[in-house]
Amino acid sequence: MIQNMARGVFQLRQPPRIVGYGAVAGKKEGEGPMGQCFDRVEPDAYFGQKTWEQAESQMQQETLTLALAKSGLTAQSLGCILAGDLMDQCIGSTFGLRSFGIPLLGIYGACSTMAEGLLLSSVLTASGAVTYAAAVTSSHFSTAEKQFRYPLSYGGQRPPTAQWTCTASGAVILEQPDGVTEGICVTGGCVGKIVDLGVTDANHMGAAMAPAAADTIARYLEAAGTQPHAYDAIVTGDLGLVGSQLLVELLQKQGYDIADVHQDCGAMMFDPETQDTHAGGSGCGCSASLLCGHFLPRLQQKNLRQILFVATGALLSPTASQQGESIPGIAHLVELTRMVR
Amino acid sequence: MIQNMARGVFQLRQPPRIVGYGAVAGKKEGEGPMGQCFDRVEPDAYFGQKTWEQAESQMQQETLTLALAKSGLTAQSLGCILAGDLMDQCIGSTFGLRSFGIPLLGIYGACSTMAEGLLLSSVLTASGAVTYAAAVTSSHFSTAEKQFRYPLSYGGQRPPTAQWTCTASGAVILEQPDGVTEGICVTGGCVGKIVDLGVTDANHMGAAMAPAAADTIARYLEAAGTQPHAYDAIVTGDLGLVGSQLLVELLQKQGYDIADVHQDCGAMMFDPETQDTHAGGSGCGCSASLLCGHFLPRLQQKNLRQILFVATGALLSPTASQQGESIPGIAHLVELTRMVR
Repeated sequence: MIQNMARGVFQLRQPPRIVGYGAVAGKKEGEGPMGQCFDRVEPDAYFGQKTWEQAESQMQQETLTLALAKSGLTAQSLGCILAGDLMDQCIGSTFGLRSFGIPLLGIYGACSTMAEGLLLSSVLTASGAVTYAAAVTSSHFSTAEKQFRYPLSYGGQRPPTAQWTCTASGAVILEQPDGVTEGICVTGGCVGKIVDLGVTDANHMGAAMAPAAADTIARYLEAAGTQPHAYDAIVTGDLGLVGSQLLVELLQKQGYDIADVHQDCGAMMFDPETQDTHAGGSGCGCSASLLCGHFLPRLQQKNLRQILFVATGALLSPTASQQGESIPGIAHLVELTRMVR
Repeated sequence: MIQNMARGVFQLRQPPRIVGYGAVAGKKEGEGPMGQCFDRVEPDAYFGQKTWEQAESQMQQETLTLALAKSGLTAQSLGCILAGDLMDQCIGSTFGLRSFGIPLLGIYGACSTMAEGLLLSSVLTASGAVTYAAAVTSSHFSTAEKQFRYPLSYGGQRPPTAQWTCTASGAVILEQPDGVTEGICVTGGCVGKIVDLGVTDANHMGAAMAPAAADTIARYLEAAGTQPHAYDAIVTGDLGLVGSQLLVELLQKQGYDIADVHQDCGAMMFDPETQDTHAGGSGCGCSASLLCGHFLPRLQQKNLRQILFVATGALLSPTASQQGESIPGIAHLVELTRMVR
């Protein structure tokens, strides 16, 4: 049923189907080039709450509610949720999802969370362990900035390689295969390895994550026996403008030319000319919201047939950085295919 | 292959087998009543490193190395690791496991991490997605204390309900079922729900976690159609002395009498009379190291045939607590059975 292709790489012959998804974003994301694709754009950075942390939880709650509504399912139908975020102890997910009463598996993959959640949800549903599983994640500019970099009121200068943590959230609901597979399905996955080439600059995360993305994509293509042009798009999470170039170069050295099919959610999210976002967007919610707001609808509307979704994470910790550690990168991959009977 | 019994509850008819496990603990844990059960007791709180955080990573690395050695496998044989810890951004796992080059799925369940890792590993191996998977976790008294409560040098007084975060680590390796199942297997699982009855005291975590443990145990027993005495032991993670009593009372109200079969790793770890540990041990490493040092060997030596391992987590965050939030609890469960041909 699930075929192990290589170490950490698998394909699903009876793939689980995506039955619902939702995307919510903040004001700045709504003003960017992708602004029209979200289900909801919230102009208030506090989402009606008292703190930024509560705002992020509120956003995650709204996003899952949207995905449930679109799937026609109730919270009681979900066997479990896979969720995580960037905040210490993943409190965006804990407090955002607490009220649903749904069994919860907390995951931590930094900005690779949506791909990790989809990967695990696909195995949980395809194996029959649960009937419906949801993958949910979020990020918020203000919670991330104060935790990972500087207090916002400090007004620190951001270098050109810095990325802008998106205020955004995405949720996807998967259904156990029923034998009559039709629709958008998770047809493969690749678990990322930690790749650490020694980058230590929290304002240069594209460079920290690009080698991990290259490793994951190359391992999947090799195991699947495919070439990049076999896919309508190879979508990375949030390498941004700088990291994206690095990724194309790294894969070229391994004999894979992805330039024509590569798209990066971080590079797509903002207009660097007018939005002062430097190298692009980042955060768990960046790739999650564009997957749910842009790529899944395009798969559904038959503009795309098959894509690789490769969310990238920088396993950054202020404590580790203060102790002189580098920033390890990781990238998890899922293959998404529009299946017809 | 995997049978969905109820929401978030499953059983494995062809169960994956445990082929290796290891337990490492610190000096204080080594001096306690369970001191003889660990593979290794490290007298140096720094594990030869410069910081406590690095010490915890080093401990995790040693524990997985031990489990690999006992299984006769190399790091290259592992399809993936499921790992997490209490530190912000799970850096114990990231930096402890970085050098192995094994695909990594980061998880966050606070002190429930070992059960969550086993639960996901069992589905990943039983479904055929990977051949071998490892579940790894750790905690360190000093990294947890400085992050969640007070700087150690502050010398804060600890109330009687407080628990002592264990310096300890555990690692378990699971193998894909081969049809000839013999040995200790993961035969069932129950994904925990967030249960939050409003406890706000970080020095009273047993009370915060007991309702979650009761919910998970009751859901599993109900779905499996079994009674507590069907198991040789129902082992909870780190409810401690106070939380354990609460758990027994809560389950009694639901018609389940677990008093005779219940054991709690937090209550077992230290001698409260001589070790000044108040309500008992806690931390991801508490239940993980006693699972790997005590319960798995007793299953192997045929002292036990079947147990429920229910690791409990307090999804505590200093930021959330400072903002007035309560401490949500969660408990994940795996059923472990010694199978004979």
